Amino acid sequence: MSANWRDGAAAVATLTFDVDAETPVLAHGREYARHASTMSHQAYGPEVGLPRILDLLGELGVPATFFVPGWVAEQRPGLAASIVERGHEVAHHSYSHRPPTSMTAKEERADFERALEVFARQGIEIAGHRAALWEASWQTAGLVAEHGLLYDSSLMGDDRPYRLVTGSRDIVELPVHWSLDDWEQYAYLPAPHVGSVIESPGKVLELWRAELDGMRHYGCLFNLCVHPFLSGRPGRALALRRFVEYALECGDVRFARCREVAELAAADPDLTTRRPSPPVVDPEVYPA
Amino acid sequence: MSANWRDGAAAVATLTFDVDAETPVLAHGREYARHASTMSHQAYGPEVGLPRILDLLGELGVPATFFVPGWVAEQRPGLAASIVERGHEVAHHSYSHRPPTSMTAKEERADFERALEVFARQGIEIAGHRAALWEASWQTAGLVAEHGLLYDSSLMGDDRPYRLVTGSRDIVELPVHWSLDDWEQYAYLPAPHVGSVIESPGKVLELWRAELDGMRHYGCLFNLCVHPFLSGRPGRALALRRFVEYALECGDVRFARCREVAELAAADPDLTTRRPSPPVVDPEVYPA
Amino acid sequence: MSANWRDGAAAVATLTFDVDAETPVLAHGREYARHASTMSHQAYGPEVGLPRILDLLGELGVPATFFVPGWVAEQRPGLAASIVERGHEVAHHSYSHRPPTSMTAKEERADFERALEVFARQGIEIAGHRAALWEASWQTAGLVAEHGLLYDSSLMGDDRPYRLVTGSRDIVELPVHWSLDDWEQYAYLPAPHVGSVIESPGKVLELWRAELDGMRHYGCLFNLCVHPFLSGRPGRALALRRFVEYALECGDVRFARCREVAELAAADPDLTTRRPSPPVVDPEVYPA
Amino acid sequence: MSANWRDGAAAVATLTFDVDAETPVLAHGREYARHASTMSHQAYGPEVGLPRILDLLGELGVPATFFVPGWVAEQRPGLAASIVERGHEVAHHSYSHRPPTSMTAKEERADFERALEVFARQGIEIAGHRAALWEASWQTAGLVAEHGLLYDSSLMGDDRPYRLVTGSRDIVELPVHWSLDDWEQYAYLPAPHVGSVIESPGKVLELWRAELDGMRHYGCLFNLCVHPFLSGRPGRALALRRFVEYALECGDVRFARCREVAELAAADPDLTTRRPSPPVVDPEVYPA
Repeated sequence: MSANWRDGAAAVATLTFDVDAETPVLAHGREYARHASTMSHQAYGPEVGLPRILDLLGELGVPATFFVPGWVAEQRPGLAASIVERGHEVAHHSYSHRPPTSMTAKEERADFERALEVFARQGIEIAGHRAALWEASWQTAGLVAEHGLLYDSSLMGDDRPYRLVTGSRDIVELPVHWSLDDWEQYAYLPAPHVGSVIESPGKVLELWRAELDGMRHYGCLFNLCVHPFLSGRPGRALALRRFVEYALECGDVRFARCREVAELAAADPDLTTRRPSPPVVDPEVYPA
Repeated sequence: MSANWRDGAAAVATLTFDVDAETPVLAHGREYARHASTMSHQAYGPEVGLPRILDLLGELGVPATFFVPGWVAEQRPGLAASIVERGHEVAHHSYSHRPPTSMTAKEERADFERALEVFARQGIEIAGHRAALWEASWQTAGLVAEHGLLYDSSLMGDDRPYRLVTGSRDIVELPVHWSLDDWEQYAYLPAPHVGSVIESPGKVLELWRAELDGMRHYGCLFNLCVHPFLSGRPGRALALRRFVEYALECGDVRFARCREVAELAAADPDLTTRRPSPPVVDPEVYPA
Repeated sequence: MSANWRDGAAAVATLTFDVDAETPVLAHGREYARHASTMSHQAYGPEVGLPRILDLLGELGVPATFFVPGWVAEQRPGLAASIVERGHEVAHHSYSHRPPTSMTAKEERADFERALEVFARQGIEIAGHRAALWEASWQTAGLVAEHGLLYDSSLMGDDRPYRLVTGSRDIVELPVHWSLDDWEQYAYLPAPHVGSVIESPGKVLELWRAELDGMRHYGCLFNLCVHPFLSGRPGRALALRRFVEYALECGDVRFARCREVAELAAADPDLTTRRPSPPVVDPEVYPA
Repeated sequence: MSANWRDGAAAVATLTFDVDAETPVLAHGREYARHASTMSHQAYGPEVGLPRILDLLGELGVPATFFVPGWVAEQRPGLAASIVERGHEVAHHSYSHRPPTSMTAKEERADFERALEVFARQGIEIAGHRAALWEASWQTAGLVAEHGLLYDSSLMGDDRPYRLVTGSRDIVELPVHWSLDDWEQYAYLPAPHVGSVIESPGKVLELWRAELDGMRHYGCLFNLCVHPFLSGRPGRALALRRFVEYALECGDVRFARCREVAELAAADPDLTTRRPSPPVVDPEVYPA
């Protein structure tokens, strides 16, 4: 098992923030734009949660990566730059937050490129991509490679970075997982209907610490995904702080931007290589 | 960051009780009036939970705000007055508890005004409004302003009061959030189907304390929303009591009626001003 | 507040067991009879859970009440008698476990009377009734009164027994509540789809203790509803045992069969009287 | 109560791993093969989770049983053999993971036999079977008997092994239960929609320990079902390790492969015998 990409640490932690704002709700249905309360619930992310998180990261002195849909960067022109100014990375998170699996290949390409154009116009350098809803198609990694990005962060085939062979160049995959996403723990909306019970920050902290401990044991990438409209709220922000403090106290966890992890991984000759391909499905075995 | 509205406290706590009785179930479907058990489940709120909560608040010596649908005030004529007599505030919570987002503009206006007429007939002074289901339309704040109310409490764009610019007068928004609502923690009904697992009062107490601690850290409005048919039950009422006792022991939390918070906020020249508007959505980006 | 029915105790605990076996699943859809695993999941109740619970109650020396659908008593002829022989009460829990709200008035009457005929043929004396799924219609209490039963246990309008005025005789209502039902905590089936996460016995024990403490504080009826196919499983049976031991240690909780509580309540001149009736719903207010 | 099958232990623990890979998702719908992220989420099971679990079992020195769909064994030719080489048992888990209740009798037979052919071609001896989704039909046990297998592990009619009378030979049933399945605790997918909140490993450990303690008290079979794509993740693998360590510390729990438990049970003359049959359902009682 390669460990070069960890650079001596027991585990590497990438704190990632999906600055989705209104997009996941609009991707559920355009009519939700009519729901003023729901729109305000989403606007809390960039307007209140994001500045709070930037301050928190500054106080803790840890770098992070912010995945921003192009639509959000466009609607709030200073947003992406304000993140970069604080020393963090901004990465590609689709244009509209519509999942690639719900689009034609042509639509996915158009959405992917439209976001790149927004970031280019704003002078934001982009090195990586994360598919909306973590719902990549089999075309997605190829788009990432074709446009010269270094890494993708949408697949779940491992808990360590791996080399992803696409039709053209290889890229690095920084895998994600639902257990390290604050959405399943905290999200609730009546329309569109999202979530069930809402968990306490204490439970989420316990979950993240357990997973970090496991990842320190096994030498993994702790790729945490947090949404400012969820974890930017006061009690949850304190839980996030406590988690980072715990990880710092461990003494063997390295915090890094995704781009840096991808660079180390790309340079690691022993990195696992994966060539995922769609399973060949016999319609007689799976008729529906 | 303005702190005048906090009047020296680390956080301000508004205990709010949505006295919905049968209305949220009838808003799901008129046919549920045929369900005797479900109707009794809802009637528990005004008949058992509400008096218990009024006694509890009296013992603890803290003021509160009760959001009452006009239909409920009309069906139970002495209810609103009995709350005011105990020194608490009664506020507008729609007439029917049908969410504004499910109505035409004309229907919403009629529902809004019908509730005001009920309270006027009963001699109850109304200073604020909360949309049914926290599902305000973009028209809602304008109705609140037009009818001379001081505040709304249906949006989620912040965790501190803010000045809301409407077409006419400005009002104060006292924002809410799902994490401070007992519905997601406790509500369960088989028909209409509501809820999943039912949480323990201990978990809910932990959640509220964590959020209060976060809000004391960040200087926020702890705007708790409790339903008498849910939190009026014995074990949950004790958890509510323990929560208030904890907040009182903190020594830096001020309990107030919504109206008083709105008055302080309205007079605060440094209060954040927000002009939310519906996002302009391109049907090519969000086709459905 | 009347306390005669409590006979000096701080709270009264009625342990009730709904011996539903296959009926709630068949009421979801007759086709589930084809699902062998699901049927075995339900059969566990009468075949493994019930004897274990009867032994447990015997060891603890506490009496209980078993609500049995007529169909179950008919399919397993010795079942009801075996419960009575152990000193417990058997009560009426519909014939088919189809909820009254899903039937016509005529169908509900036929189902209600068919169960009474089964128990009469088996020589089981019946004093009380509980509607399937706690989904009583407005006719249900009248059927209970008309057939000379003493009590119903399907409504949720209070947390203490109350006198229920029906068209004919008054009966006693021993109210239930979803928070004291093991179904929402433990039940899971893929088809019909039931439940989400499965809670630990420790969480359920915490929930029940919190509610019992609240009910001791407020002088209530702790009317616990347990299903042998759920709580008869080993870890959950131990949690039930620990709960009963806790209640016994409290020293101020009285365990009783439902029939005895109903008799004390019926004789209590200060008992609250309720005359619930269906809300009059204006189709202009609730159009759907 | 027979105890021979326990061979002196208070409880017997069978650690079973359902190596489903992509099959449960494809059984939901063939179109999910297009979802690259979802496919990677499932591929994690055989590619990362399984080797980690095999190492963990080796370190702990406990034997286990792996239920493998024929499709998975076929797609990954060395997988089944690699499990047997480590000293564990491989058992039959359908070919396609389509539940028997969703197939015709002819389709179920074809699916059942196709899996047996795969294992025969790979030289894997099969002694037992588990139905996909624990959704056996009334035909399933007969297929197990007809093909000379020793045991089935799909029903829930007890918490100890029992003799299952089929049309032909008797077999042994090693019953399962949803409370000992990691799926309800950990599984989450947006498409197909699976799960709600994700539980912490600490909660799951608490649940398993409570059930093991109950089973040691009552003398049962602790038949744990774990999925490598779920419990193979780092924090959860550590929880699984802690659970096994706890069980070993108990000193009265015997770990065994399913085949060995079935052999002891088959030889136990006092074993409970069950002849389950589909309930006879009157369409007048259950019309739908």
